[in-house]
Amino acid sequence: MFILDAAFEATSVFLTDLSLCQARLQDDARFPWLVLIPRTAGARELEDLPADDRARLMEEAVLAGAAVRAVGRALGRPVQKLNVGALGNLTPQLHLHVVGRRADDPAWPGPVWGAGAAEAYGEAALAPVMAAARDALGI
Amino acid sequence: MFILDAAFEATSVFLTDLSLCQARLQDDARFPWLVLIPRTAGARELEDLPADDRARLMEEAVLAGAAVRAVGRALGRPVQKLNVGALGNLTPQLHLHVVGRRADDPAWPGPVWGAGAAEAYGEAALAPVMAAARDALGI
Repeated sequence: MFILDAAFEATSVFLTDLSLCQARLQDDARFPWLVLIPRTAGARELEDLPADDRARLMEEAVLAGAAVRAVGRALGRPVQKLNVGALGNLTPQLHLHVVGRRADDPAWPGPVWGAGAAEAYGEAALAPVMAAARDALGI
Repeated sequence: MFILDAAFEATSVFLTDLSLCQARLQDDARFPWLVLIPRTAGARELEDLPADDRARLMEEAVLAGAAVRAVGRALGRPVQKLNVGALGNLTPQLHLHVVGRRADDPAWPGPVWGAGAAEAYGEAALAPVMAAARDALGI
């Protein structure tokens, strides 16, 4: 049975369940950022998914990229480059980050992972960002 | 026409041309590390590839993961976690990193990108590592 690691609930907000993955918005106003967690019990590496699920994950990453771009526009900071990563050094449950980057963001040109502390959106700022992400995801 | 960015030639060594990607070994003895560059002119983001090429990229990432594990074994440091990332903040040509991580590696648990300076293998150390990678890639 798939159980979401509590680490995701502490750092991100539920958006929707896609065909394969749960899609969540990272609660960090510094970067437009979605996290995709395949709803596959026990998966830690890409190789733990069957090939057709891997292809689905790739397509959901592209969809998440469109949502990240929409979030960037809603924030008035259009995305210049997408960063996609599956690391899992701290939270081994398989998950994929899709992050929108700009040359003026606080971690550029380094990676966002491990770069400073998250800045939560707060309720008022979160609403339009979630709306933009949901609209791009078609939900 | 596909032209490899010179940045890859400066930091990595040619392994083979897979179905979609050129596979290269990152010349950094600190981490078992392959880089996959789709041979697609002008591609910067995953969305720039057609869906069937995206699925091929995913399968080549899994194959590269097996090669990274083989390199880790050849180095006497078996891989504990794979890190896969497409960033491109410094080198925008679309490419995917597949890196083998261990809790005792010099960047753990942070990402490898931007973490310290690469340590080139040198000719003698490179040979068995390339052989292990080639064997795992079936070339």
